[in-house]
Amino acid sequence: MSKITPRTLSGFMELLPAEQMKLERMMSALRESYASYGFTPLDTPAIEAAEVLLAKGGGETEKQIYRFRKGDNDLALRFDLTVPLAKYVAAHYAELCFPFRRYQIGKVYRGERAQRGRFREFYQADIDIVGDGKLDVLNEAEIPAIIYDTFTRLGLKRFKIRVNNRKLLNGFYAMNGMSEKAGEIMRVVDKLDKIGPHKVKELLIDEVKMLPTKSENVLDFMAICGTNAEVIERLEQYRGMDAVFDRGLDELITVTRYLQDFGVPEENFAIDLTIARGLDYYTGTVYETTMTEHPEIGSICSGGRYDNLAEYYTDRQLPGVGISIGLTRLFYVLGEQGMLSDELVTAPCDALVIPMTEDLSHAVGAAAALRAGGVRTQLYTEKKKFKARMSYADKLGVPFVVLVGEDEIAEGVVSLKNMRSGEQVKLTGAAAADAIRAEMAERSSRAVIQEK
Amino acid sequence: MSKITPRTLSGFMELLPAEQMKLERMMSALRESYASYGFTPLDTPAIEAAEVLLAKGGGETEKQIYRFRKGDNDLALRFDLTVPLAKYVAAHYAELCFPFRRYQIGKVYRGERAQRGRFREFYQADIDIVGDGKLDVLNEAEIPAIIYDTFTRLGLKRFKIRVNNRKLLNGFYAMNGMSEKAGEIMRVVDKLDKIGPHKVKELLIDEVKMLPTKSENVLDFMAICGTNAEVIERLEQYRGMDAVFDRGLDELITVTRYLQDFGVPEENFAIDLTIARGLDYYTGTVYETTMTEHPEIGSICSGGRYDNLAEYYTDRQLPGVGISIGLTRLFYVLGEQGMLSDELVTAPCDALVIPMTEDLSHAVGAAAALRAGGVRTQLYTEKKKFKARMSYADKLGVPFVVLVGEDEIAEGVVSLKNMRSGEQVKLTGAAAADAIRAEMAERSSRAVIQEK
Repeated sequence: MSKITPRTLSGFMELLPAEQMKLERMMSALRESYASYGFTPLDTPAIEAAEVLLAKGGGETEKQIYRFRKGDNDLALRFDLTVPLAKYVAAHYAELCFPFRRYQIGKVYRGERAQRGRFREFYQADIDIVGDGKLDVLNEAEIPAIIYDTFTRLGLKRFKIRVNNRKLLNGFYAMNGMSEKAGEIMRVVDKLDKIGPHKVKELLIDEVKMLPTKSENVLDFMAICGTNAEVIERLEQYRGMDAVFDRGLDELITVTRYLQDFGVPEENFAIDLTIARGLDYYTGTVYETTMTEHPEIGSICSGGRYDNLAEYYTDRQLPGVGISIGLTRLFYVLGEQGMLSDELVTAPCDALVIPMTEDLSHAVGAAAALRAGGVRTQLYTEKKKFKARMSYADKLGVPFVVLVGEDEIAEGVVSLKNMRSGEQVKLTGAAAADAIRAEMAERSSRAVIQEK
Repeated sequence: MSKITPRTLSGFMELLPAEQMKLERMMSALRESYASYGFTPLDTPAIEAAEVLLAKGGGETEKQIYRFRKGDNDLALRFDLTVPLAKYVAAHYAELCFPFRRYQIGKVYRGERAQRGRFREFYQADIDIVGDGKLDVLNEAEIPAIIYDTFTRLGLKRFKIRVNNRKLLNGFYAMNGMSEKAGEIMRVVDKLDKIGPHKVKELLIDEVKMLPTKSENVLDFMAICGTNAEVIERLEQYRGMDAVFDRGLDELITVTRYLQDFGVPEENFAIDLTIARGLDYYTGTVYETTMTEHPEIGSICSGGRYDNLAEYYTDRQLPGVGISIGLTRLFYVLGEQGMLSDELVTAPCDALVIPMTEDLSHAVGAAAALRAGGVRTQLYTEKKKFKARMSYADKLGVPFVVLVGEDEIAEGVVSLKNMRSGEQVKLTGAAAADAIRAEMAERSSRAVIQEK
């Protein structure tokens, strides 16, 4: 028979078991973190009517989307989790309680040009809080706490949540008579980290056609930094010149006010006036999160406040705030940087039971008892030599091997071998389960990310 | 602005939050059960090259598949989890340890005619054990234990794992000179439950053109039932007439031999000679699982032993055994039957912290402390009247409300209100966390399925 080459499409992540285990660990840490803040898990179809997904239309989205017909239906794969959320909230409005807090971890699809580290199918992990008509700014204040908790659970320490406010920016541009150029200016200012203030000033003058004094105003504003108190003090000097600016400043003050009560250390948080995040969707607080020692990776968790989640589907005003983690890309980048812990147990089981007798009853019973004792247990089933059996355990990285032979059966015990220490002891089944559980609890308490 | 109707495609399940919580509970029970037997979680792309997915080709699959082009690529959505597993094992053969045990819970796509209870996007929850060249029959013996454990975790009690062996059937037909008609006979015998032995006999004579005596042989064989020991005793009477039959009988004996050691009660297990499960893929033990009081639902967990997982991709012999749960359909059916527990907490949080003062520091701190104490905690953020706040907690079904007002702040406590009992007490934050955790542990120990 002629064979088809078993290949996986380029741009689609498919992991070997040990790596998959690490990704699963990351996903469960995210689920736990989001659930601990009272977000409900949501699942929406990967396929939607193209008309629904493309309600907003236009731009890159339309080019990248996977769109196809089936029967009479014009269908498409979701390209993010925000549009399906908007559809969901608009469609189920009457049945939901607001503020509606949901998390969703799911695959999305973008037919981008395939390149290293870019994926066509990738997980996003999103949370959103959606209000009905109104949504208090306190929700914007809670987001940094959630980001901090989430990355801390994952094991990341050296990261910074960078926060800005779109009203502050828009107000600043308005008070300088630069509102029409705001979009262009923000695009240039976005390069500040990469090309420095001198080059940015040049671009503002040459390309955006700003007066040198005005470009200096922009750079002075963007250069404001320091502790939250210092930044806010500097920003207070602009108060009274523009109502939108003043509202933005008030919001920023609220967002920073409860940080300590939320448990966010000052070192993991910074007001950063250069952050803008797109042009028309966000209307208040915006967030980016960067790994302090890997700025080149860019933001690993971004989002912000918006006023109108579902304007393409409903007249209802549904303001919200949300953040998104590009999980597949983050996982890939962490792997590249060697930051995924090697200490994690990635074996499919905690204990491999190896029968040493013809009759398997005792081995089967020992495996069942271990399982009942909370131990992930695999029964070795194949008729192979002892060496091959142990080498199977080795290759899988199984933490414990449990041997059940004539002697053990006669004595009513099992032989428990710790594969890391090499130590082997005879114990009752119950004692073996306790010993395995204790070590596994210790080993699985380690975080998935490990900073050097 | 003109609006697009926010609709979800027909045949695509999209749940409200409380229902989604129940489905999540089912999924985590499945993950825990599969992991406890040493299966590793696997994730493969939803999109594959059409050529790869359709390597086997033909039949219903080809008609139902979602297939489309993107750029130069001929793509398709997976229609099951078995073909992606075959591809995965063939592609990563050199990097895997055999027996390779994996579970996968993922969405698959079939563009079937939409009808009540039929889904075009649905979750399958599969396990497979794949050997390299050989795979011991002991693996087939372990499967009923896994099925039993899994449904018991879900809370189902009245179900039966029905087991047969394809070699036994093929051998029986061979010894009766009916091998060419085996397929037709099995299709008719499959109706035994629905139309009864008398009608089946008629069909065997009229449609399959069998002699009456031979059709009686078939019916006599299919009617064999009783305890495992009784059935095997009856089957032993056929031994020696066909080598394939004898091998099948030996396998069946092995599968039943360790049931007790595996902890499977006899009442949840039955040898059922009428089960055949398709025609060409399965080669040994086959499984179906039925709800004793809902036979009309059909099998809720099926599978079997196969000799050649990946023959379309590789010359390597990769025998295996696997079972699959059609999770979306099962969830739908359980809902229809009113068998999803109403006792489960489906609220997104265990506790809703309601601030009663202008300054929110204490409420924010109380929420952070509860969370640190392992309580899923939402901080109520909106400026609404007390009644509206309590009604929000009510509608969400939140188990506990935590009030933080002037008095509580002065006394260094919180007021903890149990929403089910109505009882309200003042406690320190730590004591409140303990009280909430204790009740939640009790309430979340209940299974998701509840038989009347």
